[in-house]
Amino acid sequence: MYELGVVYRNITRADRATTDRLAALGSATVHEAMGRVGLLKPYMRPIYTGAQVSGTAVTVLLHPGDNWMMHVVAEQIQPGDIVVAAITAECTDGYFGDLLATSFQARGARALVIDAGVRDVKTLTEMQFPVWSKAISSKGTIKATLGSVNIPVVCAGMWVTPGDVIVADDDGVVCVPRAMAEKTLEAALAREANEGAKREQLAAGTLGLDMYKMREPLAKAGLKYID
Amino acid sequence: MYELGVVYRNITRADRATTDRLAALGSATVHEAMGRVGLLKPYMRPIYTGAQVSGTAVTVLLHPGDNWMMHVVAEQIQPGDIVVAAITAECTDGYFGDLLATSFQARGARALVIDAGVRDVKTLTEMQFPVWSKAISSKGTIKATLGSVNIPVVCAGMWVTPGDVIVADDDGVVCVPRAMAEKTLEAALAREANEGAKREQLAAGTLGLDMYKMREPLAKAGLKYID
Amino acid sequence: MYELGVVYRNITRADRATTDRLAALGSATVHEAMGRVGLLKPYMRPIYTGAQVSGTAVTVLLHPGDNWMMHVVAEQIQPGDIVVAAITAECTDGYFGDLLATSFQARGARALVIDAGVRDVKTLTEMQFPVWSKAISSKGTIKATLGSVNIPVVCAGMWVTPGDVIVADDDGVVCVPRAMAEKTLEAALAREANEGAKREQLAAGTLGLDMYKMREPLAKAGLKYID
Amino acid sequence: MYELGVVYRNITRADRATTDRLAALGSATVHEAMGRVGLLKPYMRPIYTGAQVSGTAVTVLLHPGDNWMMHVVAEQIQPGDIVVAAITAECTDGYFGDLLATSFQARGARALVIDAGVRDVKTLTEMQFPVWSKAISSKGTIKATLGSVNIPVVCAGMWVTPGDVIVADDDGVVCVPRAMAEKTLEAALAREANEGAKREQLAAGTLGLDMYKMREPLAKAGLKYID
Amino acid sequence: MYELGVVYRNITRADRATTDRLAALGSATVHEAMGRVGLLKPYMRPIYTGAQVSGTAVTVLLHPGDNWMMHVVAEQIQPGDIVVAAITAECTDGYFGDLLATSFQARGARALVIDAGVRDVKTLTEMQFPVWSKAISSKGTIKATLGSVNIPVVCAGMWVTPGDVIVADDDGVVCVPRAMAEKTLEAALAREANEGAKREQLAAGTLGLDMYKMREPLAKAGLKYID
Amino acid sequence: MYELGVVYRNITRADRATTDRLAALGSATVHEAMGRVGLLKPYMRPIYTGAQVSGTAVTVLLHPGDNWMMHVVAEQIQPGDIVVAAITAECTDGYFGDLLATSFQARGARALVIDAGVRDVKTLTEMQFPVWSKAISSKGTIKATLGSVNIPVVCAGMWVTPGDVIVADDDGVVCVPRAMAEKTLEAALAREANEGAKREQLAAGTLGLDMYKMREPLAKAGLKYID
Repeated sequence: MYELGVVYRNITRADRATTDRLAALGSATVHEAMGRVGLLKPYMRPIYTGAQVSGTAVTVLLHPGDNWMMHVVAEQIQPGDIVVAAITAECTDGYFGDLLATSFQARGARALVIDAGVRDVKTLTEMQFPVWSKAISSKGTIKATLGSVNIPVVCAGMWVTPGDVIVADDDGVVCVPRAMAEKTLEAALAREANEGAKREQLAAGTLGLDMYKMREPLAKAGLKYID
Repeated sequence: MYELGVVYRNITRADRATTDRLAALGSATVHEAMGRVGLLKPYMRPIYTGAQVSGTAVTVLLHPGDNWMMHVVAEQIQPGDIVVAAITAECTDGYFGDLLATSFQARGARALVIDAGVRDVKTLTEMQFPVWSKAISSKGTIKATLGSVNIPVVCAGMWVTPGDVIVADDDGVVCVPRAMAEKTLEAALAREANEGAKREQLAAGTLGLDMYKMREPLAKAGLKYID
Repeated sequence: MYELGVVYRNITRADRATTDRLAALGSATVHEAMGRVGLLKPYMRPIYTGAQVSGTAVTVLLHPGDNWMMHVVAEQIQPGDIVVAAITAECTDGYFGDLLATSFQARGARALVIDAGVRDVKTLTEMQFPVWSKAISSKGTIKATLGSVNIPVVCAGMWVTPGDVIVADDDGVVCVPRAMAEKTLEAALAREANEGAKREQLAAGTLGLDMYKMREPLAKAGLKYID
Repeated sequence: MYELGVVYRNITRADRATTDRLAALGSATVHEAMGRVGLLKPYMRPIYTGAQVSGTAVTVLLHPGDNWMMHVVAEQIQPGDIVVAAITAECTDGYFGDLLATSFQARGARALVIDAGVRDVKTLTEMQFPVWSKAISSKGTIKATLGSVNIPVVCAGMWVTPGDVIVADDDGVVCVPRAMAEKTLEAALAREANEGAKREQLAAGTLGLDMYKMREPLAKAGLKYID
Repeated sequence: MYELGVVYRNITRADRATTDRLAALGSATVHEAMGRVGLLKPYMRPIYTGAQVSGTAVTVLLHPGDNWMMHVVAEQIQPGDIVVAAITAECTDGYFGDLLATSFQARGARALVIDAGVRDVKTLTEMQFPVWSKAISSKGTIKATLGSVNIPVVCAGMWVTPGDVIVADDDGVVCVPRAMAEKTLEAALAREANEGAKREQLAAGTLGLDMYKMREPLAKAGLKYID
Repeated sequence: MYELGVVYRNITRADRATTDRLAALGSATVHEAMGRVGLLKPYMRPIYTGAQVSGTAVTVLLHPGDNWMMHVVAEQIQPGDIVVAAITAECTDGYFGDLLATSFQARGARALVIDAGVRDVKTLTEMQFPVWSKAISSKGTIKATLGSVNIPVVCAGMWVTPGDVIVADDDGVVCVPRAMAEKTLEAALAREANEGAKREQLAAGTLGLDMYKMREPLAKAGLKYID
C-alpha cells in the first residue's frame, strides 16, 4: 500500500486445491470459519447475481481515474487467479470494461474485485466474467501514473496480500490469508456438515431456541415473557 | 423502542382478511391511500425482484452485531406474519440467513423487513423467502445482549407497532397501523378502481393536463407558454 | 435552472438519424468519444437491466416532492424524445409511476431520466418503459408549485439543454450537446471500429502491454519488475 | 407519525425539576442510564459547540420543503420546551431561521431538534439559540401542506412523544420518555457519582484493567499476551 | 462543461457595485429573492465560520485528482472575483492549499468555491482566505490533463456561468446569474427591509400565525385543534 | 487484521526524534513526501481544530459496539504513542470518552485515531486530548468480545502497523511506515525548505504558471486561449 512503481513477479499462491474447494462454501460460511474477519465492506456488490468463485489474489494498486496498471497486472495473471484492485483515494470511475475482461479471461482470471467502478456490464454479464465493485460507471480513465502490482493492498477496507484466497458470491467478498487457507477450509467444512441436519430440524418446526439450547442463557440474562 | 429484555406474547393483530387484501394493491397505492405517511425509508430494498406481500407485524429490537433475539422472535411468529427487525444503532451486518429463514418459513412468516443486513441471498431467493433490507453482508453476528420482541419499534425511520399491517413490494415497504387498516383498504380500492379508466385514456393519448383539468390552475399559478 | 414558471414549446432537437445511431454505441463509448465529459453521476441507475436507448432531451425542472410539471412536460414530448427531470433540491420521492409512463409512452417518449425517485417499477418493467433514477420510492408527490419545461437544467450533476442527445444503458447516462452530436457519432464509430480487432487479439492472449505499446512508457516512468 | 392535520394543545409534560436536572448530566451519561436506548442518530449535530440543554418535547411533523407547521407549533411552546421536528421524507432544506428563532425564544423554547436543515446559523449563534440538525442550508421552504403538532414522531430514527425529555449537547441528542425520566435521573446521578473517584484513579495511572477487574474475564475469554 | 482545453480571457462580469452589495444580504435572503433557485448543494461547507462574501465568478473545470488548471485560472483572476471550481467526476482530493491561496489572494480573489477537497486549512484560516468545499483532505493532486477556464460549469449541482455573482456565508453558496443580479439585489433589499419590524414583533411575543395571517388558510386546509 | 485475541507487548517503534519532528511538517506535506500514499480516508476529522501531532502507533482491533479492548490497549501505551483503533465492521458508536482519555493521557498517549465514534467531546477538548474520528456519538458500547492489540490493522482505509508514525492535523491523518520515517522526514523537510521562497514570490504576484514553468507544457498539451 506504500510502495509505488513496482511489479512483483513471483508471489506464493495459496494451495490450488484448497483455494478451489472454498468457492462452494460461500463467503458467509468462510467468513464465520475465520472467526468473523476478512470481509470486504458490504458496498462491494456483484455486477450480476449468481456467480460464486474462489481464486488466488493478484493485486494492483491504482490512482484515482488512472487504469494504466490494469494492463500491467494482466501479465501477472495465472489461471485460477482473481485480480484485486485497490485505489489510493476514493473513486467511482469505470476502470475496467469488456476489452480488459477479454484479456483477463484469456489469461485465466476468474474474476475482478475492484474498489471503484466498472463498465460494459452488459457485455461482462454475457461473457460471464464476474466483477465485484463499488460502482458502475461509463467514465473512462487515463494512463499517466504508476501504481504497483502484487504488493499488499487495502481493498474495500480489508488487507489483501498477493497469493491470499478470495471467496466471492452474492453475499460479498472475503479474503482468506494464505497461511489460514487450510484451517479455514476445515472449519468451514465442519460448519457446513452440521447445517443439513439443523436445516431439517428447523424445517420441521423445531425452534432455534430449543435446538441451540438458548432458553436458559436468555433467562439468565433476564429475558421476561409477558402475556 | 425503549424497553429492553421483554417479549410480549399476546399482541392484537390486524384483521386477517383486510391484511391479506392489501398485498395486491401494492405499497405505492397503499401509501397514497394513507395520506402519504407510513413509508419506510427508500434505502430498504428487496433482495430479489417480484415479491409482493402483506402481513401482520411481529417486531424485534436488536443490538448492533447481535442477532440473539432473532431466535426469540421466531417463536412468536404466526402464519401470515411479517417480522420487522429494528436495530438500536446503525449496522449492516448479516443478521439473517438460510437457517433462520427455514425456521421463519416453517412458522408461517411471509417475509422479513430488517433495518440492517442479510446473507445467503441466493438460497433465500431459491426458497422464495423475501427480505427487504438496507444491506447484504456475509458478516455474522454474536448472541450476547438482550433486545425485545413485540414492542413498538422504529424501523428505517418509521414507527411500527406489533400487529400493524406491512405491505412490501419492489417499490418499498409501508406500515399501516392496525386501526387504519380497514379504512386504508377502502381508500386504496377506491383509488385503484379509477386507475383502469385513466390508464386507457392516457394510453389513447389524452393528456393528464386535460384528464385532471390542470390547465386552469396552472395558468392561475402563472405558468407561461413561450413559442 | 434559474427560470421558473415557463414552458418553451419550440426547441431545436438534435438530428434524428444521428441521435438514433448513438444508442447502439452505448454510454461508455459515447462518453469516451466526447473526451470524457457529459456523464451524469453514476448513482443514476436503470430500474431494470438491458435497456439501451438514445433520444432527444425534453427537460423539466421540478420542486422537491412536487410532480405537477410532469403533466406539463408530457404535452411537449415528441416521438423519439427522452424526458430529463431535474429537481431544485435533493429528493428521493416517487415522482413517476405507471399512469405517467402510459402517457409518456403514448406520446412517443423512449425513457425517463430523473434525479429523484420513481415507483411502480414492476409495471414499468412489464411495459418496457426504461427509467434511470437515483431512487425507487413509493412516496407520492403533491401538485402545488410551478417549475419549468424545456429550460436548461442540471440533472445528476450534468448540464442538459433541451434538444441535446441522451444515451443511456446499463453503464449510465450521457448527455451529448446538440452541436456535438454529429462529431461525437463519428468519433464513437471510429472508436468502435477498432474494438473488434483488439478484442480478437486480446482473446488470443496478446497483452494490452504489447498491443498498446506500453512497455516503453512504463519503463520511462520508472516501473520496476522484481523477481 | 400517521395522523395529519391535527394540533394537540394539551400534552402532559415530564416533571419540570427532573427535566431540568438532566441537562448537566449530558447525553452520554443519560443514554447509558437508560440502558443504551433513546439516542437520535449521530448525524444530528449542533450548529455551534458548547450548548448543553434539556427540556420537554413539543413535536411537529412537517412535509419535505414545507415549514408551514413551524408557525403552528410556535403557539404550543411553553417555557422550558424543546421543539422536535420530524419530516415525512428525507429533506435538507432550511426550515428554520432567525425570525422563527426569535419567536421560539420569545415563547420560552430552549432549543430546536430538527431532522432536516436550518439557516441563519451565524445569527442563531449570536442569539445563543441552539439547534441540532442534519444539515445547514440556505434553501427556504413553502407553506402549502398540513402536518401535525404534538403527535408522536420519529425524529432521526428515534421515537419522541410530546412531553418526553430531550437532552442535547455536543455528543448528540437523547430522548427520555416521560415515564422513565425520574428513574433515568437517579441512574444517571448514581453513574456520575462514581466517575469522580474513577477519574482520579485513572489520572494517577491506575489501569481500567485493574480498576474494573477485567484481567480475569479477559483471560477466561482467551486473551493471550505475546512478548 | 463540455469544452476541454480552452481558457476564455474576456468574460463579462456582473456589475461591481451590485455584486458587492449582495454580500451583506447573505445566501439565504438572496436565495429567497431569486425565487428559491441558484443554491449549490448543502454539502458545500466553509472551512471556517464567519466569512460572508460576494464576488464575480471565474470558473475552472478540473479532472479528478488533477489541479493543473488551478494555476491557469489564477492568471484570469481580477480583484473582486471568486473562483468556482468544478470537477468532471466526484473527488475529495485536496486541490488547493496555502501556496495557491497566496497566489489567489495576491491576484485579488475573495474566496474559492470547490466541489472537491482543500488542504492547509489551518493556514488558510490564518490568512482569512475563505473556501467552501465538500471535503478537507491532505491528498495532493497531479498536473497531467487539461480542463478549461471560464466556461460554464456545474458546481455542486448548480450551473455557474463566468461573470455570475457568487454569494457565500455560513448557510451555503448561491449563484446569481449576471442578468438577474440587479433585480435580485432589489428583491433581497426589499425582503430585508421588512425583517427588522417582523423581528421586533416576534420578539415581543406576536405569533407568526397572526403576523402572517395564517389562521384562516390553515383552518381552510382542515387543521384541527384538539384539547 | 486477521488475528483475534492476542496482545503483542513488544513492538518496535519508529525512531523517537524522527517521529517527533514530523508533527510540525503537517499531514499534507508528509503525504506529499511519501509520494501520495499513506492517507487515511478524509472522513476522519478532528473533534476540535488546531491540534497537530505525531506519534508512534499502538493499534487495537475492536468489534462493532464493543470497546473492551480499549482497556487492554491502554496498558501498552508508552509516552509518545498515538492509539490507532480499527473496527471489524462499520460502526459509529462512541467507543471512547473522558475516563478513557484520562487513562490514555496518564499513560503518555498523544492522541487517538479511531474509525468509529467518540463522546464527551467537550471534556476532551478541555483536556486538550485530540481525537480524529469518523463520528461523534453518545452511544456507549459493551465489553463482550475479544479483539487484538498491536497487530497490523486497516484504519479508515489505510494499513497501519504497530510502531509506524502517525501524523495528524486539521487536514487529516497520515501513516508513515516505520521503515520510511527517516526518508520521509528528509523529503518533507526538503519540500518545506522551498515553500518559503515560493510563497514570497506568489505573494508578490508572480504566477505559478511562470514560477513552475508550466506555460510550455500546457501549450504542448493543447491549451488554447480565446479572447
